[in-house]
Amino acid sequence: MELKVIKQKVLQANEDLAEKSRLLMRERRCLMVNLISSPGSGKTSLLERIVPVLLANGVKVAVIEGDCYSTRDGERVQRLGVPVIQINTEGDCHLEASTVHGILSTEVPVDTGLLFVENVGNLVCPAVFDLGEKLKVSILSVPEGSDKPVKYPLLFRESGLVVLNKIDLAQHTNFNRPEFYGFMKDINPACRIIEASCTSGEGIGEISDFFMALLKSG
Amino acid sequence: MELKVIKQKVLQANEDLAEKSRLLMRERRCLMVNLISSPGSGKTSLLERIVPVLLANGVKVAVIEGDCYSTRDGERVQRLGVPVIQINTEGDCHLEASTVHGILSTEVPVDTGLLFVENVGNLVCPAVFDLGEKLKVSILSVPEGSDKPVKYPLLFRESGLVVLNKIDLAQHTNFNRPEFYGFMKDINPACRIIEASCTSGEGIGEISDFFMALLKSG
Repeated sequence: MELKVIKQKVLQANEDLAEKSRLLMRERRCLMVNLISSPGSGKTSLLERIVPVLLANGVKVAVIEGDCYSTRDGERVQRLGVPVIQINTEGDCHLEASTVHGILSTEVPVDTGLLFVENVGNLVCPAVFDLGEKLKVSILSVPEGSDKPVKYPLLFRESGLVVLNKIDLAQHTNFNRPEFYGFMKDINPACRIIEASCTSGEGIGEISDFFMALLKSG
Repeated sequence: MELKVIKQKVLQANEDLAEKSRLLMRERRCLMVNLISSPGSGKTSLLERIVPVLLANGVKVAVIEGDCYSTRDGERVQRLGVPVIQINTEGDCHLEASTVHGILSTEVPVDTGLLFVENVGNLVCPAVFDLGEKLKVSILSVPEGSDKPVKYPLLFRESGLVVLNKIDLAQHTNFNRPEFYGFMKDINPACRIIEASCTSGEGIGEISDFFMALLKSG
């Protein structure tokens, strides 16, 4: 009971700071994207696929890499030749606005056009803590199953894009496409859904186009 | 900073209550198992596979089913013919000792020999909050990747059994077995690891035997 009250205060402070970050990003004309998924759904692999396409299109990309521990993902993204800021939460299951806000001024290059924040792998709390992003992108990998939008409705309701990843594995699993699309229609009918595979390359062009269009629309 | 202090208090209260639950379970000669994994790694599917084997061996099984929302998993487990108590956390990313403790006295049949607690799908906080279990069992599914023990070390260090699930998908992914076993050896060399598939049935007998042996050893 006590914990609930405390969380509410934390959330209000979080939202205030997120709003400041949002204003800062707007001033800088930088599109900030909050990438959220379960552990191992393919957030880093997706960045490895789409960042080179965006770079080739002249977009200045930077990445904030959130992990409980280890710099493995940060090192993978760094190999793409973009500025990476690795945050280790040391056990916290999500990033908060306070963690990201300071970094925006001190570490993210001012001419960044597209800032990806790869959140800690978790479908629950990262959906609760606004970071000041323009939009949330969630990644659901096919082996996780088609019922996830119903079990984690906040994330899937708040996402502007859902990437249905590892689609190459669909034939080897019992993933139920009509069920998944039905759930998404109930929860977030306006949400864009793109089927993708970082192995086959399916959907990668479409996702890159999605971001290019967003950048053009300002 | 403030939040850290508050969490510490919550954790102490949690540990005190978890210890009470552990004593109660010992008195009742009930083995309590805390099942932890990412969303969609196969916790419920594994229960669907092993509970019938345990029932056939005369074990009285009960299940506490933790989910943020929905009763889908609870309904699936109920079809196995065992008592199920569904907990909906309404957004909290883990179960706590306080949630489980009351239920042990009021809802779990006193003659239960093996109580599975299926935690909320998350690799971070469920590893932090002791529920009073005898052991933690973590499930890692092959498509999540071989680096998860390094990225979520607390869980994999605290587990008495790791089920490497969806092993039938190994041939379709880049899962690196030597890397995974190497990480586990570094983090938790005593941990039992069983490769399994709820699709092919591989490893199901071995997991059931693992629990039967634990029950016999008291």
